[in-house]
Amino acid sequence: MSSPAPDPSRADAVLTHFDAQGQAHMVDVGAKAATHRRAVATGCIRMRPATLELVESGTAKKGDVLGVARIAGIMAAKRTSELIPLCHPLALTRVAIEFDLQRIAGDGVVQCSATVETLGQTGVEMEALTAVQVALLTVYDMCKAADKHMVMTDVRVREKRGGKSGDWSA
Amino acid sequence: MSSPAPDPSRADAVLTHFDAQGQAHMVDVGAKAATHRRAVATGCIRMRPATLELVESGTAKKGDVLGVARIAGIMAAKRTSELIPLCHPLALTRVAIEFDLQRIAGDGVVQCSATVETLGQTGVEMEALTAVQVALLTVYDMCKAADKHMVMTDVRVREKRGGKSGDWSA
Amino acid sequence: MSSPAPDPSRADAVLTHFDAQGQAHMVDVGAKAATHRRAVATGCIRMRPATLELVESGTAKKGDVLGVARIAGIMAAKRTSELIPLCHPLALTRVAIEFDLQRIAGDGVVQCSATVETLGQTGVEMEALTAVQVALLTVYDMCKAADKHMVMTDVRVREKRGGKSGDWSA
Amino acid sequence: MSSPAPDPSRADAVLTHFDAQGQAHMVDVGAKAATHRRAVATGCIRMRPATLELVESGTAKKGDVLGVARIAGIMAAKRTSELIPLCHPLALTRVAIEFDLQRIAGDGVVQCSATVETLGQTGVEMEALTAVQVALLTVYDMCKAADKHMVMTDVRVREKRGGKSGDWSA
Amino acid sequence: MSSPAPDPSRADAVLTHFDAQGQAHMVDVGAKAATHRRAVATGCIRMRPATLELVESGTAKKGDVLGVARIAGIMAAKRTSELIPLCHPLALTRVAIEFDLQRIAGDGVVQCSATVETLGQTGVEMEALTAVQVALLTVYDMCKAADKHMVMTDVRVREKRGGKSGDWSA
Amino acid sequence: MSSPAPDPSRADAVLTHFDAQGQAHMVDVGAKAATHRRAVATGCIRMRPATLELVESGTAKKGDVLGVARIAGIMAAKRTSELIPLCHPLALTRVAIEFDLQRIAGDGVVQCSATVETLGQTGVEMEALTAVQVALLTVYDMCKAADKHMVMTDVRVREKRGGKSGDWSA
Repeated sequence: MSSPAPDPSRADAVLTHFDAQGQAHMVDVGAKAATHRRAVATGCIRMRPATLELVESGTAKKGDVLGVARIAGIMAAKRTSELIPLCHPLALTRVAIEFDLQRIAGDGVVQCSATVETLGQTGVEMEALTAVQVALLTVYDMCKAADKHMVMTDVRVREKRGGKSGDWSA
Repeated sequence: MSSPAPDPSRADAVLTHFDAQGQAHMVDVGAKAATHRRAVATGCIRMRPATLELVESGTAKKGDVLGVARIAGIMAAKRTSELIPLCHPLALTRVAIEFDLQRIAGDGVVQCSATVETLGQTGVEMEALTAVQVALLTVYDMCKAADKHMVMTDVRVREKRGGKSGDWSA
Repeated sequence: MSSPAPDPSRADAVLTHFDAQGQAHMVDVGAKAATHRRAVATGCIRMRPATLELVESGTAKKGDVLGVARIAGIMAAKRTSELIPLCHPLALTRVAIEFDLQRIAGDGVVQCSATVETLGQTGVEMEALTAVQVALLTVYDMCKAADKHMVMTDVRVREKRGGKSGDWSA
Repeated sequence: MSSPAPDPSRADAVLTHFDAQGQAHMVDVGAKAATHRRAVATGCIRMRPATLELVESGTAKKGDVLGVARIAGIMAAKRTSELIPLCHPLALTRVAIEFDLQRIAGDGVVQCSATVETLGQTGVEMEALTAVQVALLTVYDMCKAADKHMVMTDVRVREKRGGKSGDWSA
Repeated sequence: MSSPAPDPSRADAVLTHFDAQGQAHMVDVGAKAATHRRAVATGCIRMRPATLELVESGTAKKGDVLGVARIAGIMAAKRTSELIPLCHPLALTRVAIEFDLQRIAGDGVVQCSATVETLGQTGVEMEALTAVQVALLTVYDMCKAADKHMVMTDVRVREKRGGKSGDWSA
Repeated sequence: MSSPAPDPSRADAVLTHFDAQGQAHMVDVGAKAATHRRAVATGCIRMRPATLELVESGTAKKGDVLGVARIAGIMAAKRTSELIPLCHPLALTRVAIEFDLQRIAGDGVVQCSATVETLGQTGVEMEALTAVQVALLTVYDMCKAADKHMVMTDVRVREKRGGKSGDWSA
C-alpha cells in the first residue's frame, strides 16, 4: 500500500463513529453545509484468462456479465445506508460505473470504477465503495460456475471532492 | 493468484446465468436436492499501523469497530439475494464472522473470515463473500476519518461443502 | 393509444439513461433545481362483475380490499428507487391514492389514481406509476381466489407538474 | 376480457385474505403441501413506433433497455412478499423473463413474459405478475424522455401449475 | 412482572447468540428439525379516552386506524430478520393480528395480539413481537396529532408451541 | 399515564393521516419549512435480575448484548418510513442510543433512550420510537434463551424540538 507518511496527530481523535463513552452512534451532521460532493472508487476481480474471455465475448454479443454487474452496483449504491450501520442516508444525484478488461501477469482482470455524486451533508465514498464491491460480487456470481478461484482485490477510494476535508485523489 | 491449470473444456458451457439466447435469468434449481451446504470466504483490509492500533484498542475497551462490522456482515449475508441480481433466496441456518489483526510488511491488516451454512438447493458462497465485503466496508467507514488510504483486498472463497459440485478448499 | 404526432427530432437523443458508450447510468441531476414536482398516474384492473361486487361490499363493511391496496400503493411509492434500477431516490412530500368502481362493457373495473409530490431535482412520475401498479397487484392478490382472469391495464401518466420539461396533462 | 362463465357459487366464500370478522390476515398455509409450482404472467407496454425503434437498436448494440428491465423484473420477483401485504414469502427456484417486440395497429409494443417457479406451499402468480409490472415500469423509465405517452397494459396470469386448485392456462 | 422462580442453573450457559469467545453470531440451527411452530405476542398502547374515541369511530366508518396498523404489523413480521441482527430468516405460513379496545383506570387502551406460524427450524416469537411493536407504532403515528402522550407498553410473548423447548403459555 | 388535561377541541380535527373521505394518505408536507428537528424517545425491558446480570457482564467483557442492540436500533431508525405506512422518508442527520441498567422493585430493567435529528419537513418522533422498539426487541432476542418472560414497556416520546407545533418535553 503506497501510504503517505503516518499522521499520528490526527489518529488519537478520529474514531468519530464512537462517542466519548466509546459507544457507536450515527454522527451529527446537522450543522454541516449541503454541498456538492463526489467520490470515485475502484477495485478489480482477478480470474483465469479463459474466464476473462467469457466475459469479453458476453459484452460483445450475448451473456452480458458486465451489463448485469453495472446495474447491481448502481442499485447497491442507493442502499449503502441500509448496509453500513452508521452511514447517513443520502439522496444520490449521480451513479456511474465503468469496467475495463486487462491481462496482468498471466491473469485476466476486470477493473471496476464507480463515480457517485450528491448534494448533501456528508461524503459519498462509502456509496462508491459499495457500488464497486457489489458490482465485483455480481461478476463473481455470474462467472463462478466457470472459475471458482477468482479474487476480488484492491478496492479503494481514488478521489473525493467537496466537504470540509478538502479535495484529494490517490 | 495461485490458480490451478485452466479448464477450457468447461469454459464454453459455463455462463449458466444466461439462457441459450444469451439473456440473464435466475437459474432453475427446482430439481436440485436440498442438502446441507457450507461456504467459507475471507478477505482483508490494509491500513496504516496507527489505524490498526485504533482498531485494536477499541476491541479491548471502547469504540468496538470489529463488533459493529461483525453485525453488519451478518445482516448483509441475509440480504445477499436482494443485492446480487441472479442469486436465489436462501434461508440461512448459520452465519459466523471472525477477525484477525496482523502486521504484514509494514501495514496493519484486519483479516475477516465468514462462514455461512444453509439447508438448501444452492451453495452459499455468495452469502459468505457478501458478509466479508460488507464487514470490510464497515471497518472502512468507521476508520476513514483516521485513514483514507485503506485498501480492501484478497476477497475469495476458501471452502465449499455440499451440493453436486463436491467439496473443495483453497 | 391517443398519441400525439411523432417527434422524431427528439428521438435520436433521448435514451438519457445511457451514456455516450451506451452503458446504463443514473443520470446526473446535481445541477437541476430542487423544485416542487407533482405527478398523477392512473390504471385499472378489470374483473368479473361478481368479483367487483365482492370488492364493493368489502369497502362498506368488512373485507376492505381497497383499504389494503391503498396502503400497499403508498408504501411502494416510497420504495420506487429500490425497484427501478436507474431511478433517483427522492424524499416524497405527499402520496395519495383514490379508487373508483365502474361497470364497463360487462366487466367490473377498479380504477386507481395516484398523486405523488416532492420537492426535488427529478420528477415523480415513476413513483406515481409504481404506486398504481402495486395497488392493482394487491387488489389482484386479494381477489384471485374468486377470479383468476383479472387483467391490469391502461396504466399511464396523466399529469406532470414542475421541472424543466414543463407542465402537461393527458 | 374473455372471461369464462361467472362462478357465483365460489364468489361468496372467496375473499380468503379476510377472516370471519372481515379483518385482513396472511392466510394459514401451514397445512398445504410443499409442491413444485409454476406461474407465467404476461403484459405489454405500448409506445410510439419511433420509441420502439430506440428500444430495438439498443438491444442490438448499445443502450440495452430490455437487458436492464429484465434484471429489474427478476429482482422484483424476489421482493414480492415485501410489496404485496398479504403475500407469503417464498424461496423462488427459477425466474425467467422474455421480451418480444411487435407493431400492432400503428403502435410499437414491447410484450413481456415472466415465468416463476418454486417448491413451496403457495402459488407464484403474484411473483410472476410483479416481475412483469416492474420490468414494464423499467422500460417506461428508460424511454420516458423520448415518449411520455406510453401505456402499460394487459397484465395477466397466463398459466399456473401445481397446488390444490389444479393446472390451467388462459 | 409475574416472573417464575429464577433459574440460575441455565443462566450461565444461555447467551446463545455469542460464541465461546463472546462474539455475536447467528446460531447454527441446521441440525434442528423443521417443525410446525407458533407464537402469540401481545402489547398495548395507552392514550387519552378522547383519542380512543377517534380510533373507535374510525373503525366503524372512516379513518380506519386499526386497519392500517394491522397491515403494517403483518408486513413487519415478514421483515423481522432484516431488523433483528441475529434472527434467522423464516418463511412464515400465517400472520394474524387482532385489536381490542378497552378503558382501564381512566385511560383508553388499544390492546394488540399477533399470532405467527411457520414450518421451520426456529421459533417465531420475534416475528410475533415485531408485528405487535410495529402495529402499535403505526397506531401512534396515526393518532399523534391528537395525543402526543401515548405510551406503548406490556409487550410480551404469551404462547409458544413447537420446537425442542416445549409448549408454554403465560 | 400522567396525561395532561384532555383537549377535545383539537380531537375532532386530528386524524390527519386520513383525508376528508376518511381514506388514508401520506400527508402533504411540501409547504412546510425544512427546519432542524429533534426527538427523544425512551422505553425499557424488564427481566429477571439474573438475566440483567448476564447483560451487565456482557457489556464489560464479552457477549455485548447492548452493543448489538444499539446497532440494530440505529439501523431501524433509518428504515422507519419503510415500516410505518404513512411516515415520510427523511434524511436523518444524527441517531444516538443510550442504555441504562437498573433494578426496580425486584426486576432487572434495561432502559433505552434514542435521540434522532434531521433537517426536514416533518418531525422525527417516529424514528426515535422505532429505534427504541427495535433496540429492545434485539435485547429480547439475545436474552430469550435465558428468560422468556421479559416485558417491553413504557415506550414513549420524551422530547420534541423544531417544527410548527413547538418544543415540548414530558
